[in-house]
Amino acid sequence: MKTRAAVAFAEKQPLEIVEVDLEGPKAGEVLVEIKATGICHTDAYTLDGFDSEGIFPSILGHEGAGIVREVGPGVTSVAPDDHVIPLYTPECRQCKMCLSGKTNLCSAIRETQGKGLMPDRTSRFSYKGETIFHYMGCSTFSNFTVLPEIAVAKIRKDAPFKTSCYIGCGVTTGVGAVVNTADVRPGDNVVVFGLGGIGLNVIQGAKMAGAARIVGVDINPDKAEWGEKFGMTDFIDARDGSVVERIVNMLDGGADYSFDCTGNVEVMRQALECCHKGWGTSIIIGVAEAGKEIATRPFQLVTGRNWRGTAFGGAKGRTDVPKIVDWYMDGRIEIDPMITHVLELEDINKGFDLMHEGKSIRSVVVY
Amino acid sequence: MKTRAAVAFAEKQPLEIVEVDLEGPKAGEVLVEIKATGICHTDAYTLDGFDSEGIFPSILGHEGAGIVREVGPGVTSVAPDDHVIPLYTPECRQCKMCLSGKTNLCSAIRETQGKGLMPDRTSRFSYKGETIFHYMGCSTFSNFTVLPEIAVAKIRKDAPFKTSCYIGCGVTTGVGAVVNTADVRPGDNVVVFGLGGIGLNVIQGAKMAGAARIVGVDINPDKAEWGEKFGMTDFIDARDGSVVERIVNMLDGGADYSFDCTGNVEVMRQALECCHKGWGTSIIIGVAEAGKEIATRPFQLVTGRNWRGTAFGGAKGRTDVPKIVDWYMDGRIEIDPMITHVLELEDINKGFDLMHEGKSIRSVVVY
Repeated sequence: MKTRAAVAFAEKQPLEIVEVDLEGPKAGEVLVEIKATGICHTDAYTLDGFDSEGIFPSILGHEGAGIVREVGPGVTSVAPDDHVIPLYTPECRQCKMCLSGKTNLCSAIRETQGKGLMPDRTSRFSYKGETIFHYMGCSTFSNFTVLPEIAVAKIRKDAPFKTSCYIGCGVTTGVGAVVNTADVRPGDNVVVFGLGGIGLNVIQGAKMAGAARIVGVDINPDKAEWGEKFGMTDFIDARDGSVVERIVNMLDGGADYSFDCTGNVEVMRQALECCHKGWGTSIIIGVAEAGKEIATRPFQLVTGRNWRGTAFGGAKGRTDVPKIVDWYMDGRIEIDPMITHVLELEDINKGFDLMHEGKSIRSVVVY
Repeated sequence: MKTRAAVAFAEKQPLEIVEVDLEGPKAGEVLVEIKATGICHTDAYTLDGFDSEGIFPSILGHEGAGIVREVGPGVTSVAPDDHVIPLYTPECRQCKMCLSGKTNLCSAIRETQGKGLMPDRTSRFSYKGETIFHYMGCSTFSNFTVLPEIAVAKIRKDAPFKTSCYIGCGVTTGVGAVVNTADVRPGDNVVVFGLGGIGLNVIQGAKMAGAARIVGVDINPDKAEWGEKFGMTDFIDARDGSVVERIVNMLDGGADYSFDCTGNVEVMRQALECCHKGWGTSIIIGVAEAGKEIATRPFQLVTGRNWRGTAFGGAKGRTDVPKIVDWYMDGRIEIDPMITHVLELEDINKGFDLMHEGKSIRSVVVY
C-alpha cells in the first residue's frame, strides 16, 4: 500500500512529505493507522546528527497513537479497530529481561530495532524502490506503519489520539520515572532539574504520588509558571549558584528523590549531590551528549546516596501504558495543557523549529 | 585512672605504648575494658596522613571487643560485666537518620566524633596533662576506653574476644554490605573486586545469602586460594585485561550485584559496568583517596544499572552486630581463619607493617 509520510532522507535536512510504499504486516506484526504523533527531542537529536547510530533514510517519530487496521498471521493480542500506542520499548513477556520482573528493557527485538529493521531483518517501508528504515521500531511520522505485535499497547477507545499519543513517550517517561523507577511515596520530597515536557511530567507524577515538596530547578524563570500548573511547590533559579546547598537547606538535608531531565552531566551531578544522606536517590532521565561522562566523589555514594537511571519511565509498555491512559482519562494526570501546538503533517518541520526555539512544550501532528 | 595505650602522637610516626590518664564515664557513657582489637586499613590510612581530617595526638583503633566495667549516670542499656563491641557508627534510635529506617548513618554524635571528642566536646584521654583525642569514637588501641552508651553493641558472653572484635569493622562491613545494603537473594550472581579482608567477608556473606556464582577479581592470583576458602566459585585475574567483558560473558549479561573492596576509582567503574543491564547494582565499600572521583557514561545508569555505596555494611550497630556475632557462633560465617596474626600491644606497630606488606588478612592485638 501507499502511505503519506515525513521522510528523513539525510541528517540535518528538513523532513520531506512524500507517498512511500508500505508492505503489509507479516507474521506477528500489525498495521496501524497513526492518528496523531508528538514531536520529541529524541527525533530532533537523530535528525540533527547527534545520534552516532542514526540511520538514514528513515521515517522518524516514536510517540504516536492510532488504530489497528490489519494483523498478520498469529497475532492474538490485538485485532483490527483496536486503539493502540506504539512502543519503542516493547514487552515480549518471554525474554530474560521481561521475565526478571525487575526491568522494562525487553531484549526480544533490540538488535533489529537498533538497525532500523523489523524482527525479520527487513524494512516494510520503501520509496521509489529504495529501502526506507524504521526508527525506534515505531516510525510514527507515517500515516500508516507496521509494528511487531509486542510493540503496541492496546488502550481504551474513548482516549483522544491528539493527547494520548504523548503517553507514547514523554508522559510515560516522566510519570513512570516517579511511580515505577523511584516509587515515590506520600510525604517524600522531590527535586526536578529541567522544566521541559519531561520535567513537568515528573512534577505531575510526584504530585499524584503524594510528594510533600516538589522543587523545580531551571535556568529559565519563565518555566516556573509551567511547573506550578502541574504541582511544583518551590522554584530554584539555577543561575543563582550553589544549587546543591540551597536544596539541602530547603529540604532539611536534601531530596528523597531527584530527577535529571536536562541531559547535562554537570546537572546530573548536582541532582545526585542534593540528595539526602543515607537514602536519597537520583534518577537520570535526560540523554547526555555522546562521550560525556558523569562524575562524583565516591563518598557521595558511601554515605548512602543512590545513583540510578530510567528509560521509558521504567514502564512495561503493554502493561503500564494502558494504566497511564486511564490515569489521564480519570483526571489524575493532565495532558491537554502540555499540547501547545497542533500541526498538519505538511507543517511537521515547523514543529521541530518550535522545539528548537523553546516555544513549545509538545507539538503534535494529527493525520 | 591509668591505662596502657598505643598513642599516635603524630602522623607517619610509629605508635608509642604509654600509660595515659583516662577519666571515668560521664552521664550516658560507659567504661569498657578492651580485650582485643583488630588493626584495620582505616587506622593506617589516618596514621599515614592520608585522612585530611585526621587529628593528633590520638588513640587509634576502632575494631574492638571488651567488657563494660563501669557505667555513667542514666545508662540503662548495658551494665558492668556485659560484653560489648564498640561502634564507630552508633545507633541512637532517636535521630532523623535512625528513625527513617532507611539508613544506619546515625547522626546523633557525628559532629563531636569527627573532632575526636566525646558528645560533651571534651576528651577523656590525656597524657602528662595534654589532651589525647579519641578516634572514630572508639580508641580501641587503649586497654580501657570510654564510649557513649549508644556506641556499644551488647553481645553474648561466650563469643571469644580475639575473633569477635573483627565484627567491630571488617566482618560487618563485608557481610553487611551483602545482607543489608545489597540484600542478595538465593541464585543471584555476585562479583567481588579485591580479595582482602573485606572482599573475603563479602564472599562469605554472599555464600550465606545463597548466591549462585561468586566471582572474585584481583590482580594477585595468590588471593584466589583465600577466596575459595570462603565460597568464591570463580576467579578473574584482573591483570589479563577486559575484566568487564569477561564478567559479562561469564555471567550471561553481568553481575546481579558487584562490590568494590579496593578503593580504586577505576575499579569502581569496572564494578559498575560489569553489572547486568536492567537491574545490576554495584556497591562501593572501599574508601578512595582524597580528591579521586568515580565516572561513567550516564547510559550505564539509564539502561538500568544502580550505583550505590555502604558504610559499616549498612548495619545498625546495636541491632545488627549482635546478630552477626550469633552467625559466627552458629558457624554460619567464619572468622578464625582470617585472624592471621595475634600480637601483644607492644608489637602493634608490627601489625601495621604486616598489613602494609600484604602479609596479613587481619592482625589482632590482645590485651
